[in-house]
Amino acid sequence: MDAQLPVAIFDSGVGGISVFQALTHLLPCENIIYLADNKRVPYGGLSSETIVQYTSEAVSFLQAKKAKLVVLGCHTASARCLYDEEVFSFQKRFSVPIIGVINGGLQALKQRDDFRRVAVLGTKSTIQSGVYERLIRCQNPHLEVIPIACPLLVPMIESGLFTHPDTESLVRGYLQPLLNDSVDVVLLACTHYPLLRGLIQKVLGERVVLLDSSDYTSFEVRDYLAAENLLKVSGKPHYQFCVTDKPELFSRRVSLFLGAEYNSHLIDQCQL
Amino acid sequence: MDAQLPVAIFDSGVGGISVFQALTHLLPCENIIYLADNKRVPYGGLSSETIVQYTSEAVSFLQAKKAKLVVLGCHTASARCLYDEEVFSFQKRFSVPIIGVINGGLQALKQRDDFRRVAVLGTKSTIQSGVYERLIRCQNPHLEVIPIACPLLVPMIESGLFTHPDTESLVRGYLQPLLNDSVDVVLLACTHYPLLRGLIQKVLGERVVLLDSSDYTSFEVRDYLAAENLLKVSGKPHYQFCVTDKPELFSRRVSLFLGAEYNSHLIDQCQL
Repeated sequence: MDAQLPVAIFDSGVGGISVFQALTHLLPCENIIYLADNKRVPYGGLSSETIVQYTSEAVSFLQAKKAKLVVLGCHTASARCLYDEEVFSFQKRFSVPIIGVINGGLQALKQRDDFRRVAVLGTKSTIQSGVYERLIRCQNPHLEVIPIACPLLVPMIESGLFTHPDTESLVRGYLQPLLNDSVDVVLLACTHYPLLRGLIQKVLGERVVLLDSSDYTSFEVRDYLAAENLLKVSGKPHYQFCVTDKPELFSRRVSLFLGAEYNSHLIDQCQL
Repeated sequence: MDAQLPVAIFDSGVGGISVFQALTHLLPCENIIYLADNKRVPYGGLSSETIVQYTSEAVSFLQAKKAKLVVLGCHTASARCLYDEEVFSFQKRFSVPIIGVINGGLQALKQRDDFRRVAVLGTKSTIQSGVYERLIRCQNPHLEVIPIACPLLVPMIESGLFTHPDTESLVRGYLQPLLNDSVDVVLLACTHYPLLRGLIQKVLGERVVLLDSSDYTSFEVRDYLAAENLLKVSGKPHYQFCVTDKPELFSRRVSLFLGAEYNSHLIDQCQL
């Protein structure tokens, strides 16, 4: 394996861009390939079997692109592929190592022992998988976990509607159970949600800590690459973006919240 | 062609059920096959090319099932496949005749000459296609058309959230341009929207007429079958449901608004 080979990030849409940002900040020399399956976005309402099938196609594609590591930059895919018991063998299907984003959130929680109540916000599929409740209870048995499914937030973000006048009302509706009975910390268990971070913080108040797993995921990537002697520590990085539907759809969505920076990169259309 | 062969209805999700209902009421003896591509729902945010590709796969599937007629029970698919100039040849790819739901809405408008302003509510793709504006201007040149894209309503309905406390707020946001400057009629240019009919009527007030194309589409089906001598006018009907993701996902959604009636039918999982 060669350090020059790219780290791959996969998401159904633009959510994984939060992982991309964390990774480019922490490891500015790494070559990165980002794959968005925007022809089938969002995954949050699909069956577990279908999510595993689509993610498997994406990992095969990235393995063929000679990625040295694949990050599933999507909690729905990470939960269903890496933690569901019946598909525990997901990694075994591929030679390329796979890292999900769920461990990142758990690591973030591990740093603090003053939390008593944590709310986990995720898609319907992620919340139904129960993976966060299960793993947090093992790791932090004193923590009370309040899982909240927010099925409309991804469609809303993917539609670029995070400035829509009713977004706040919808977010307030989802967070209603937390307003009366306060929590210490909220885990954003979906890579899209950091895009609504300001709004969520405003609704919950400044006292509540918001945790985003992207930073911790990038630490995990760094540690893995360092251990395998695969870090690329010099030279300009090369970024490649691949999408399954029209590139314009993707660049329009990305530029809505990242500005023109990532539009200057070439976006290829591909088939999974 | 044999009158016993089924009429097919295709939608990405449960929206086409409004066409199914209209058809079973008008033509209670017809055999019907309903196909939902719930593995890739919703279509409203996809590129035109992808919508045409997915719809094409669906029609091929239904043609192989020996449908005597295919109804595209989805305005997004109807607009992109049957009216976009570059894909005007969509019908030519298939031997089975194809009817969309757009003509139904136009026929509904044609019946009345007292309307002055019409709002057209649809998905982002349907509204961007401009098909309704173009066709209404040809047919009713005196009518002012106000197109309104409502990108979150389909995800909301597919998630069964039409009773969510914030649905009204979201609907009110979309209809804001109509509240100050009133319209005579609102065309529900998406087969999902009739499921929010009561709420939309409440927001707009009783004076505004709501038009749903499903009834008119079923008239068009009847007229076509009668002209081709393909009407099935006796015997019990047989209904078959095919879905691309897990049947449970579909039956849960359908039963949310139709009750248990359609759950008693067998739902097959299929591949397009």
